[in-house]
Amino acid sequence: MKDLLTVGTVAFDSIETPYGKAEMVIGGACTYASYAASYFTDRINLVSIVGDDFPKSEMEALEDKGVNLKGLEIKENAKSFFWAGKYHENMNKRDTLTTDLNVLDDFDPVLPDEYKSSKYVMLGNITPELQTQVLDQLDGSQRLIAMDTMNFWMDIAWDELMKVIGRVDILTINDEEARQMSGEYSLVKAANKIHELGPKFIVIKKGEHGALLFGDEQIFYAPALPLSQVYDPTGAGDTFAGGFMGYLAKTDDVTFDNMKRAVIHGSAMASFCVEEFSIKRLKNLRDDEVNSRVMKFKQLTHFDL
Amino acid sequence: MKDLLTVGTVAFDSIETPYGKAEMVIGGACTYASYAASYFTDRINLVSIVGDDFPKSEMEALEDKGVNLKGLEIKENAKSFFWAGKYHENMNKRDTLTTDLNVLDDFDPVLPDEYKSSKYVMLGNITPELQTQVLDQLDGSQRLIAMDTMNFWMDIAWDELMKVIGRVDILTINDEEARQMSGEYSLVKAANKIHELGPKFIVIKKGEHGALLFGDEQIFYAPALPLSQVYDPTGAGDTFAGGFMGYLAKTDDVTFDNMKRAVIHGSAMASFCVEEFSIKRLKNLRDDEVNSRVMKFKQLTHFDL
Repeated sequence: MKDLLTVGTVAFDSIETPYGKAEMVIGGACTYASYAASYFTDRINLVSIVGDDFPKSEMEALEDKGVNLKGLEIKENAKSFFWAGKYHENMNKRDTLTTDLNVLDDFDPVLPDEYKSSKYVMLGNITPELQTQVLDQLDGSQRLIAMDTMNFWMDIAWDELMKVIGRVDILTINDEEARQMSGEYSLVKAANKIHELGPKFIVIKKGEHGALLFGDEQIFYAPALPLSQVYDPTGAGDTFAGGFMGYLAKTDDVTFDNMKRAVIHGSAMASFCVEEFSIKRLKNLRDDEVNSRVMKFKQLTHFDL
Repeated sequence: MKDLLTVGTVAFDSIETPYGKAEMVIGGACTYASYAASYFTDRINLVSIVGDDFPKSEMEALEDKGVNLKGLEIKENAKSFFWAGKYHENMNKRDTLTTDLNVLDDFDPVLPDEYKSSKYVMLGNITPELQTQVLDQLDGSQRLIAMDTMNFWMDIAWDELMKVIGRVDILTINDEEARQMSGEYSLVKAANKIHELGPKFIVIKKGEHGALLFGDEQIFYAPALPLSQVYDPTGAGDTFAGGFMGYLAKTDDVTFDNMKRAVIHGSAMASFCVEEFSIKRLKNLRDDEVNSRVMKFKQLTHFDL
């Protein structure tokens, strides 16, 4: 088992879906990723920033899961990042209603010394400048660095984004964004083009249609678990990434075969995430629930010839 | 190996995709399904109608694949069914430019006696009345009856559609149509509602996102093969259905485990279909190409825990 560094937002969300509303609940890419990873490793080094409005009880809950919060800056007299969004019946699309950067506006991530040798790194979706700033502080001993990004940074910070993408091993990105980044409609061609930008592996997230892993001239397709009800897809992609990297940090094996298992574990965690608003379902899972969910993916996809 | 009865259109298509155009090429649900099935069985009983404009050479090509054309009516001084459509970059959506029913307008399917005991039946997408008319001529000894349909019949012939759905074992339908038929967005809930209408098994086709098989309180998810280029998706759903039913007729085993294999074989055939316009790719496949394509699906989805 190796250390996993997770960087990104720890935040509040207000969410509306066809099934209900949740106001000022816990959110943030780094929160979701850390909870998901915590089912595989208790050596998680979190880097983020919150205001003094962020509940102490929520920090303690993360620490109880093995998340090291030395890298969590708590800014006095400031508000945490806030996002509000609304989903329609097609949960693959959403409208952003509010984005209040608040503390994120002058986030200057400083890694505690003990974080710098983390062998696995998950750069959540923040500005490419901040992602670069984190990479610059690492000691160079990393085994696998993954990053997430979004269309917004392609639109306003393309050059900086290309620099950081050139330095990572894995890019996780959704299908529309992969198409935008590559200019290719076919996801096979899109992954090939992104591969040329630097990452050895590309994970394309397709929401309810699952996820594709490209690398080593191989492709792996993990479906999403078909569910009767998706209550809240917020954080599902980050949860996937956290489960994926948590499993890799636990097993410390970066072969394509083990990455397949990691994709399945990430998909299993994402399938829990969407069953409740916010981190409610992710906070208190039992190991046997996680294991039986992973087995469901096997039943769902395996066949004998 | 058992007989497979295939019913549906044998037609001409004119197709435009972002990659090219094909004018007056061979099309029709029953054509695609029969070619796909022919790689698993040479006992295919085709029921359809064409005009005397349909090339003799194309009929001979079907016969060479083991397709019995005794049930193909050739109408003198009449034109074959014609469909023209255009695809945009997102190949999951298409615009219909022309639909000329021609001979289909007064199609009155009469089953040759030797067809009536076919153990496997694939009712392609035609009017529910015609599907019913075919069912009424069967001798009752069938092992598995599948049908396909489309939104058009839900809009204009709901009651007749419900009657025929109540008589079949499997419904194959695309995701949007499953949602329309059930009034449910979740495909799990949609399949449950359709199950209550009669079919024991439901196959929901999701185009580039693969296909789901529901039945016996189990779910199986087969991805579509990620391809660099989809030249022409016309007939992919019918090809899937033909491969699926052809494999079942060959193996004569309707357990859920064998249906999984059938879904994979159907998906493999569909992945060939889209690689060229019309039936070009489907006409002359070698068995080893089919087998290695099926193996690709295993590599694509299998993982060890």
